[in-house]
Amino acid sequence: MPQGQFELHSNGRREFIDLSGRIRTIVRESGIQDGLLVLYNPHTTAGLTINEGADTDVQRDILDTFARMVPDAAHYRHLEGNSPAHVMASLSGASVSIIVHQGQIQLGTWQRIFFCEFDGPRRRTLRWLLLADR
Amino acid sequence: MPQGQFELHSNGRREFIDLSGRIRTIVRESGIQDGLLVLYNPHTTAGLTINEGADTDVQRDILDTFARMVPDAAHYRHLEGNSPAHVMASLSGASVSIIVHQGQIQLGTWQRIFFCEFDGPRRRTLRWLLLADR
Amino acid sequence: MPQGQFELHSNGRREFIDLSGRIRTIVRESGIQDGLLVLYNPHTTAGLTINEGADTDVQRDILDTFARMVPDAAHYRHLEGNSPAHVMASLSGASVSIIVHQGQIQLGTWQRIFFCEFDGPRRRTLRWLLLADR
Repeated sequence: MPQGQFELHSNGRREFIDLSGRIRTIVRESGIQDGLLVLYNPHTTAGLTINEGADTDVQRDILDTFARMVPDAAHYRHLEGNSPAHVMASLSGASVSIIVHQGQIQLGTWQRIFFCEFDGPRRRTLRWLLLADR
Repeated sequence: MPQGQFELHSNGRREFIDLSGRIRTIVRESGIQDGLLVLYNPHTTAGLTINEGADTDVQRDILDTFARMVPDAAHYRHLEGNSPAHVMASLSGASVSIIVHQGQIQLGTWQRIFFCEFDGPRRRTLRWLLLADR
Repeated sequence: MPQGQFELHSNGRREFIDLSGRIRTIVRESGIQDGLLVLYNPHTTAGLTINEGADTDVQRDILDTFARMVPDAAHYRHLEGNSPAHVMASLSGASVSIIVHQGQIQLGTWQRIFFCEFDGPRRRTLRWLLLADR
């Protein structure tokens, strides 16, 4: 059954964690040649995104820009104090879908799949599904 | 044929409407055990998101933050006056994809599926598809 | 095998390019009646979105609002100078999923599928997958 889950730990309050290697391994071990990989984040103060991985400054710039767009120093009603992380979760989205062709996820040259921690450090679980195109 | 549509009514100009219960019913009645549920919003001034449902203040904080990011009091060309709602539709996205396992959508503990009304009140139609993993 | 890719050229630094016609052709030629179309963007300074196509002012308003949210005149670390385009890529997302019913993509009345160029002009390649619901 080509679905499962895996765990990860974030170390900072906000950071990107590159999942591309893990996802490549999952697809390889499944033996599926063509289809769709869906990666799903079940947490409400984190997200998933696909963006540049070569220069880590890009990840920093995205997080810094999100922090300017959704500042800590604004009025929020939610008393836990992590409303900005919830907003960022909706901005980045709860899942990514990536096409599999000839046994490989079809990321672009500079693309990596990132888990976006917006309210860490925490232990997180991610879920994946592989739909074969038969 | 595991696809269909359903209607809903929004009551306010901007609000989140929890669709999790309806989606659980759709998945249960389909009899599908493992696969992917795709929920699709065909409207251009509304969106879909997955976020916390326990404290309704989180929904309010997300809507308020979107309104600060995309203020009504800015210059827009579109003469209908609802450009902010169109921008918010692109920020939240037109669909959500959720993994189904053992007959259940795999939402996280605090996650709910929300229809995001950005230009209500209106009558809206949503479309869904269930892809079985066979 | 219902997957493939196609090329397009952007002409401006930032613009929306309507792909709805191409996608309708792809779905028609596939012969698939019911299922899911996934369109994937492998570039890190571009995105995909679904929004209104009738009044081109809406596209302009979305791009202008994105530029206010992610201004060029802010501090970014990435030395290539296109960090705002990377942020916009994460805001819009790397893929769109659209339900196919009776051989037709189920776009809403006013919806069009847009490629979002955030750092053009460039030659871009997009990838698509059609999952049949059998």
